[in-house]
Order: sequence, then structure tokens, then C-alpha cells
Amino acid sequence: MTDSAVYADRLHRAQAALKAAGADVLLVGPSSDLLYLTGIDAHISERLNLLVLPAAGEASFVVPRLESVNFSDKADLVRIEAWEETENPAGNVAALVGSGEVRAVGDQLHAMFLLRLQEAIAGGNWVQGGPILRELRVHKDSAELAAQREVARRTDDAWAAFLEGGPIAGLSENEAMARLSALMSERGIKPMFGICASGPNSAMPHHHTGERVIEHGDAVIFDWGGELNGYLSDMTRTVVIGEPSDEYRKVYDIVLRANQAAFEAVRPGVACEEVDRAARDLITADGYGAAFIHRVGHGLGMDVHEDPYLVKGNSAPLEPGMVFSDEPGIYLAGKFGVRIEDTVVCTETGAERLNSAPKQLTVMD
Amino acid sequence: MTDSAVYADRLHRAQAALKAAGADVLLVGPSSDLLYLTGIDAHISERLNLLVLPAAGEASFVVPRLESVNFSDKADLVRIEAWEETENPAGNVAALVGSGEVRAVGDQLHAMFLLRLQEAIAGGNWVQGGPILRELRVHKDSAELAAQREVARRTDDAWAAFLEGGPIAGLSENEAMARLSALMSERGIKPMFGICASGPNSAMPHHHTGERVIEHGDAVIFDWGGELNGYLSDMTRTVVIGEPSDEYRKVYDIVLRANQAAFEAVRPGVACEEVDRAARDLITADGYGAAFIHRVGHGLGMDVHEDPYLVKGNSAPLEPGMVFSDEPGIYLAGKFGVRIEDTVVCTETGAERLNSAPKQLTVMD
Repeated sequence: MTDSAVYADRLHRAQAALKAAGADVLLVGPSSDLLYLTGIDAHISERLNLLVLPAAGEASFVVPRLESVNFSDKADLVRIEAWEETENPAGNVAALVGSGEVRAVGDQLHAMFLLRLQEAIAGGNWVQGGPILRELRVHKDSAELAAQREVARRTDDAWAAFLEGGPIAGLSENEAMARLSALMSERGIKPMFGICASGPNSAMPHHHTGERVIEHGDAVIFDWGGELNGYLSDMTRTVVIGEPSDEYRKVYDIVLRANQAAFEAVRPGVACEEVDRAARDLITADGYGAAFIHRVGHGLGMDVHEDPYLVKGNSAPLEPGMVFSDEPGIYLAGKFGVRIEDTVVCTETGAERLNSAPKQLTVMD
Repeated sequence: MTDSAVYADRLHRAQAALKAAGADVLLVGPSSDLLYLTGIDAHISERLNLLVLPAAGEASFVVPRLESVNFSDKADLVRIEAWEETENPAGNVAALVGSGEVRAVGDQLHAMFLLRLQEAIAGGNWVQGGPILRELRVHKDSAELAAQREVARRTDDAWAAFLEGGPIAGLSENEAMARLSALMSERGIKPMFGICASGPNSAMPHHHTGERVIEHGDAVIFDWGGELNGYLSDMTRTVVIGEPSDEYRKVYDIVLRANQAAFEAVRPGVACEEVDRAARDLITADGYGAAFIHRVGHGLGMDVHEDPYLVKGNSAPLEPGMVFSDEPGIYLAGKFGVRIEDTVVCTETGAERLNSAPKQLTVMD
């Protein structure tokens, strides 16, 4: 399919999903949802940019006049509804919503706009659009899977180059992360996030990378990813500087086996929470259950975190084409942490890793 | 004041503003508002991070357990309310909101959270928090003004180096912007946005910088800025490649005079819209009113667009310490555009430009 046929098809499927959910209209601001549905890369600001998609009929894109000219190539897909600098566009949206009583709202719309729309359009119900779009976005088509595969492959490649790039002891966390980010950029990937957590900082899953200098004896977690052609990579490796302690060896081995256990639990029909449980049961049996303080994984695509979430309480079944992380971790406060993460796709018969970078215990200088 | 005293003071002033507005509680997610009020640099994701600030009493920060450890240094300022991975934090927020009937919401909270909170906390009113915080944020204190001054100065300096950096004809817009961004980075500024709009693209105010190659005869608009110590620069210069046409000379001169006219209109007590009018009247008198399709300026600080907006319909008076852009433009579809932008601060007696880069008609190769 051409790009415009892809987007027209997605808009039609979104309309079917709206009908199935009993919603009359979907309102989507600049976000991955908007990119997914229309390819429109709109500007997030205090000026309203909004896709108004009725359950039946034509889609409109409400956009400031000074930006509308950027989207003239989208006029076949959506009606461009430009508003002037001194207008209040909530009125335009109200007219487009009309008598629709159930209005679904994209996850990432800013509250200032939702509150203005709730004021301009009285009565009715406002519901979350995310769950409605979920069924479209969680099923990656072959072009999307090819994009995920390529960005994962290049991320593996950046990591291989990083391991060969010389000692990291003596670098700050920021410097080490900058080295890895540069290797991503060299491979055409736009770095989107990166955690380097060294020594005791590695016991904090979402540590803010900083000026701590990496030293002998540290465990060092790298959790990073980037974007290529609209799709993201997300990978974690933990290394140790110099000869590891017995406790590090033990914990590393448990996390590695938990990563494998989660991977082996993946196949169509298995509940998302069962993948989490596979890793958690193994870690718990080995005595570290309380130190595994996050879910085992999250969906990955145009957003770094998206459905499906592999977490206790999510009984939704896995289906072919779903892409997500497999990232168990053990965090020992004040000492160290270990996390190992691959991107995985659910296939017709089981699972496939999109990352192939080695995961054995790795010692760096 | 120490940092923590600054934030405690801002929280107290926000509570006074809540009381004055008749609001019982303010809810703020990861955003410039959160940074301004608390210095908390939280992670935007699908996991709720939320400041709950009652009009009286203690502030709480609702945060996922796996991130709460990052904010232990904020425990004197806000009560850290960590939620577990399998909990629904809307319940925690509902308990903290209690019987508060009027709930103000920060501008940038994602709709998915607002809708969940509206479902968990029945009745009452939800109002915009932006206008309540406006009175704090529009008045930059001396430390904030020093930060704005410094980032503007370094941005001027990057532009001076860019002009001396050799020909840009033959570069793509992306390449030219990358050269300017690198000069920003070299000066310690994190590039945050950048438009390079060449030839006919310069007639689109928010053109998406692309692969068009800059050629002889082009007008080229550069509109860019970056962050240093939490505060932003925002500057626009238009250059022409080779000898300009008479029409370009005429339009450039009008825009330059409109930039000066807006600047001269700034002083305490003048309505925001009067600054817009000063530029617009001049451009209209010279016959290009219909081609000036955006407001003359916007506030600048921790956000690239914030209050005060210098736009028709905004009768709020300027006050000392307000920082904003002065950026008239003329856009001739299919031909070229010219925009000239400085950052300006309203002083006790008038106005001061924070940019001092030259603005005379500039020819590049």
C-alpha cells in the first residue's frame, strides 16, 4: 500500500473501533496516535492542533492557520480546518463534534485543551481513546515489524561497538552514555532516552544519569533506545567493572534466567500477566522477589511505553505481531542492580527476540 | 535564597493563588510547572507522576515506587507518596484531594490521567491551573532574568559564529540548521527547536525544516533556541543568499521597523495587545497587513511559549519582569518570508532587549 492508503485504512479501522466501543467521535492532538493514524507530525504547543474523527464520515484536522500550510499534502486524507490567530478553536471543534454524546480523547492530549473542550461542549461523556486505539496499535503489520527489527539490529550493533570502544572506568555516567548515544547516531538512530546507572545508582531502576564517575567494582546498567523511521528500540545490558563479587555473579545469573523464562512464556493466547509471573516466580524462588520492583515488560513501537503491558492484573492475551520488552531486574539498595532487556515479538507459534546482542556476564575495564 | 527555600516560597505563593482563585487543590504532572514549583524533573510516561498541592496544608508528590528513590532529596518540600506497580494511583490522588470541590489541573497533564482522575473523583469542578500559576510564572525574579540574559547572550554569540562560518548555499535546510545547533551546543546550550526555512519555504512561519537545498536568491529564515539552566532562548534572523530583490529589501525594511515599533510600545501598564497592534499597524500601513498572519510575540521562560501572549484580544497589562518575544513577520506565499525576532524584557520604565545580534539586512553566500 502507498502511505496515504495505509493512513486511510487506519482511519477506517479506527472508526470501526469507535463504533464498537460506542463512541461517537475521537479527538487526537499531536502524539504518536496522530502520527499512526494520519502521518501528521504536528507541533505540540499552546495552539490547538486536533484530529476530529467521527465514527462515521469525514475526518477533520483543526490547525492554526500559520501551520496549516505544512499539511496541504494531507488534504485528501483529512479536511484541513484552519483557525485564525485571534479565534478560539474550541468553537470549531464543538461544531465538528456536533451532537456526538460519547467523545473519546487521545491519551496524550494536554489537559488545558481537554478542559477547554469540556467547557465548550456541555453534557455527554468523555472517555479514554487509548483503549479504543489499542487494538489497532498493538498489532504491528509487516512494515512496522520490519522497522522494529531494523532499529533493534542497529542498536545491537551500537552496543557491540561500545563494548569494543575501550574502558569506561573513569568516565562519568553522562560521558559513558554520550559515547553510547554517539554510536547510535552514527548508525542513523536518533537517541531518545538513555540511563547509565553505576555502582549504588544501579539499584535505582529509573536513575537520573549524572556526574558520578564509574569505578572499579561497579555494576553499570545501560538502558537506552532510539528512533529510526518512527519506531523505537529499547535495550538494557548490565556490565561489571573488573572482577565481580560472588553476589553479583549469583544475581546476574538469576536475572538472565528470568529473562529467558519470560521469553519462553510468550506465545499467542498467553495472558500478559503470565509473562511477568514466569520471571517473577523464578526470581522469587531464588529469594529476590522483593527486589524485582517493576513489571517485566511493556509494549514498544512508536512510543517507548505502550500496550501491551506485561504486568500482574493484565489478563489480556498475547497475539501475533505484538512487540514488547522482556526486562526483569533485581535491585539491592545501596549495593547494585542488574537488569537485562531485549525487545521481543509474539509470533504465530511463540516468540522471537529482535535483539541478538550477547547477554552473558560481561566484564569491562 | 537556597534552592529549597525558593521552591518552598513558590509553593506557598501557589497556595495563595489557589485560594484567591477559589480552587481547593492543584494537580500538576511532569512539566515546566512542576519544575518551577518544586525542581522535580519527573519522567513523562504512562505511569502517574503528580504533584497534589492543596490550597492549605502539605504538598504530596505521587510517584511510582521505582522512581520515588530519585526524589528522596525533595522529602522536606513534598511528602513522597510512592505507589506500587500493581496499584491504581488514582485512588491515592482521590484520598489526597479529599473533599476539595474545585480542582485545578496543570496545563500539560496528559488527558489519560485527567480522565482517570475525573472517573475516580466524582462531582465537583475541574478548572485550568495555567491561569492560576500564570501570576507566579510571568514575573521573572532576578535569578530567572539572569538565566534568560545568559542564554540569550550565548545564542547571539552562536549566531555571530554562524555568520562567520562560511557559505550556506548548497547546504540543505537540515544541514544548515545542524551547523547552527552545533554552535549552540558548543556554547553549553541544549538545542530545543530550530526552523530553517529557505526560498518559498520561508513563506511558511512554522515550516518543517527539510532536505531542500539552499540556493542563490533565497531568503532563509532561522528561528531557533535552546535551554541553559532551565531557561530558553528564542531568536529569529532572516538572511538572503546573494543580491536581494527590491521587493525583499522593501519587505525586510518594513519588518525591521515593525520589530522596533513593537519594542518601543513595551512598558509597564501597556496592554499586551497594544504591542501587537504597534507592529501590525505599521505593517498594515505599508500594505502587508494580510501577510502578517501571526501574533507579534509570546512569553518565554521555562517554556518556549508561555504567558504573556502579545495578541489581539489580550488586554492584560505588561508588568516589569515579563519576558517575551518580539517577532513580526511578512509571508508572501510562493515567494519568500521575513521574520525578525528578539527576546525582550519589560523593565520598570520600558523595555530591554536580551538579544543584541545585529538586525540590518544581511547577505550570505
